Amino acid sequence: MQDPATALTLPDPLPLDSGAVLSPVTIAYQEYGKRAADGSNVVVIFHALTGDQFAASPHPGTGRPGWWDRMVGPGKPIDTDRLCVICANVIGGCLGSTGPASERPDGTRYAQSFPVVTIHDMVRAFARMLDELGIDRVHAVVGGSMGGMQALAFASDFPDRAERVLVLASAARQSAQNIAFHEVGRQAIMADANWNGGDYYGGAHPDAGLAVARMAAHITYLSEKGLTEKFGRRLQAKGDGKPGEKSFGFDADFQVESYLRYQGSGFTRRFDANSYLYITRAMDYFDLAEEHGGRLADAFAGASARFCIVSFDTDWLYPTAESQHLVRALNAAGAPVSFVELSSPFGHDGFLLETPGLDEVVRGFLT
Amino acid sequence: MQDPATALTLPDPLPLDSGAVLSPVTIAYQEYGKRAADGSNVVVIFHALTGDQFAASPHPGTGRPGWWDRMVGPGKPIDTDRLCVICANVIGGCLGSTGPASERPDGTRYAQSFPVVTIHDMVRAFARMLDELGIDRVHAVVGGSMGGMQALAFASDFPDRAERVLVLASAARQSAQNIAFHEVGRQAIMADANWNGGDYYGGAHPDAGLAVARMAAHITYLSEKGLTEKFGRRLQAKGDGKPGEKSFGFDADFQVESYLRYQGSGFTRRFDANSYLYITRAMDYFDLAEEHGGRLADAFAGASARFCIVSFDTDWLYPTAESQHLVRALNAAGAPVSFVELSSPFGHDGFLLETPGLDEVVRGFLT
Repeated sequence: MQDPATALTLPDPLPLDSGAVLSPVTIAYQEYGKRAADGSNVVVIFHALTGDQFAASPHPGTGRPGWWDRMVGPGKPIDTDRLCVICANVIGGCLGSTGPASERPDGTRYAQSFPVVTIHDMVRAFARMLDELGIDRVHAVVGGSMGGMQALAFASDFPDRAERVLVLASAARQSAQNIAFHEVGRQAIMADANWNGGDYYGGAHPDAGLAVARMAAHITYLSEKGLTEKFGRRLQAKGDGKPGEKSFGFDADFQVESYLRYQGSGFTRRFDANSYLYITRAMDYFDLAEEHGGRLADAFAGASARFCIVSFDTDWLYPTAESQHLVRALNAAGAPVSFVELSSPFGHDGFLLETPGLDEVVRGFLT
Repeated sequence: MQDPATALTLPDPLPLDSGAVLSPVTIAYQEYGKRAADGSNVVVIFHALTGDQFAASPHPGTGRPGWWDRMVGPGKPIDTDRLCVICANVIGGCLGSTGPASERPDGTRYAQSFPVVTIHDMVRAFARMLDELGIDRVHAVVGGSMGGMQALAFASDFPDRAERVLVLASAARQSAQNIAFHEVGRQAIMADANWNGGDYYGGAHPDAGLAVARMAAHITYLSEKGLTEKFGRRLQAKGDGKPGEKSFGFDADFQVESYLRYQGSGFTRRFDANSYLYITRAMDYFDLAEEHGGRLADAFAGASARFCIVSFDTDWLYPTAESQHLVRALNAAGAPVSFVELSSPFGHDGFLLETPGLDEVVRGFLT
C-alpha cells in the first residue's frame, strides 16, 4: 500500500478566484493501480464534502476501509488491474492538502486567514498536480456530489484534459435549499464557544458545533423512506438487554437519535471544523451557468469529453431534476452525454452504497 | 381586545403520561367572538410547535399580528361573528401556560425538572380547562402541524367532546426523519454553553443554539421550490445600495442565508429554549397507532365527530402520504371523513399562508 502521507507541493503559487494567492500548496493524494507512462489510463476520483483521498485504502485516522472501496480495486467497476486511480484531498481540506489547519510559512496556523476557495480553485490545484506528475490527459474524471461538481468544473476549465466525465448525484449549481442547509451547519460551528473565530488549534475544538452540523447534513444524505425503513420509530435498547422504553427525558430514546449522535461525534474525530466551513462555502459558490453568462451550455462549449450523468430517484439533496438540467445543457453544447436515473433506497448516499445498476454503469462508461 | 394575560389555573393536579403529576397547572388562552351559553359555537384552535394562543390578536412580545390572523376573525373563514374561537398556549410552552420557565411552588424555575409532557397531556390539560369554562362539547377542534396532532388526540381521548375535527398538514405519528430534525435542534440547544443543563434563567440564554435549531427547522417548513422561487441563488445587497457580491468569506452573501439568520435570531426573542426541547419531545413521542396496539383505526373507535384532513402537495415534513394513512384509518373506523390535498408553493407552511382553496375548505367544514 502507498504511504498514506503521499503528497506533492506545487512549484508555483496558486492564484485563486477570490484574487488571493495561495502559497505553498501541498496536495495529498493516493494512487491505486499501475500508471501508464503517458497517464492515459488514469481515472481521477474527486471526493465529496467530507471525503478524502483514501477512496480505496484504509483511512489513516479511523482505520476504516476507503470510502469507495466497493467501487475501486482489482476487478471492481473502477478496475485497478487496468486503470490507475488518483484521488487527492481538496485544498481547504484537512487530510494533508493545504487547508485552514495547515501551518503558514511563519509556523502559525491559517485558521480563518485561509482564503476562501472555490470548486474551480480545487480543480486548478489538481490540474497543476497532474502537470507535476506529467499527466496531460486522463482516461476519466469521476465524482459524486461535490466530486461531481469538481468533475464538471474540470471538464469546463480544462476541456482537453479528460476523455470521460462521470458525474453522480450532483448538479451544476448549489440550490437555495442546499445553501440553507450548509448555512445551518456553519452557524452551528460558529455558535460553539470553542470555535473562537476559527482560532482553536491550540485548545478545545468546536466538536459540539461540528457534530450538530454533521447531524443536520446527514439527514439530507438519506431518504425519508430509507430512514423509516432503517429506524422507523423504533426505540433504542438499553444496556441491560431489555427492549427500549421512552425515557420521558432527553436521552436518545429513538434509534434514529442514537444513530445521528453517533454520526455527529464520530465525524468530529476525523474532520476539522474550519475545513467544513471552507468546503461548504466552495460548494455554495458553485454555479457553472452563472460563470458563463447564465447559459450552462456555454460552460461546455469546448469540451471534448463524453459525459455520463447519474442521478438517484430518492436523492432529494441533488434531485434528478438537477441532473436533467445539466443533461439538457450538455446536449445544447453538442456534447455526447448519457443519462440514467437509478432506483435506490439510500437517497443522496446512493452513489456510495450498493445501488442496483450503478456498478454496471460505472464499469461500462470507463471501458 | 382580551387581556393578553388571560389565564386559568386548574383546580386539580394534572396526571401525566410519564406517571408524574403537574401542579399547579395554569393555562393561558385567548378567546375571540361571543361564546354561546353552552359553548356549542366554540371552535378550538390548537397551535403548532412554536405557535401560541395569539391566533388572531397581536403577540404581546413582538406586537406582530396573530399567527392565524388571515383565517380567524369577523367574516373570515373561522368567522368570529358566529363562532367563538378559543386558543390556548400548550403546557410546556412559554407564553403563560405552565412550562419549564415557570416558577415552581418554591419560587425557583422548573428548567429541566419540568416533566416531559406528551400531546395527550396537552389535550388533557385543555379538556380540563374546558371543564372549568363549563364547555362540554365544542363545534370543532382545528389544528395544523402539531396542532393537528392535538386535534387528533383530542378526538381520540374525548370522543364525545367535538363535533368536527379539522387537521391540516399533520400526521398521526412523527416520522423518523422528523424525529431526526428535532434531535438536531435539541442537540444544537444543548451544545450551547449557555444552556447549562437547562439552568439559564438567571443569566445568558442559549440563543445561539436556539437560533440554529430554528434555522434547521425553518428549512423543513418551506418547499425546495419555494426557496428557489423566493431566494434562488440571489446575493444579498449590501448597505451601500450596490448589488450583492460574493464576499469570499462567511458573511451572509446569499439572501437565503440572511433570511435564515433573521429567522433564527428573531425566534430567540420570543421563545424559550427549554420549551423547544419539551415540545419537540412531545411531538416525537406522538404515535396514535402505537398507543392503540398498532392499529390506528382503533384510536378513533368511539369518535362521534366528522373529520376533515387537509394536506399540501409541497409539504415534505408532513407529506400527503401521512394524511392518506390517517384517512384510511378513519375510514376503517367508520368515521365520516373528507380529505383534500391542496396545491401550494409554501411547503409545510401552506396551512399558515395564502393557499388557494384552503379558506373555502375551512369555511365550508365549519358551517
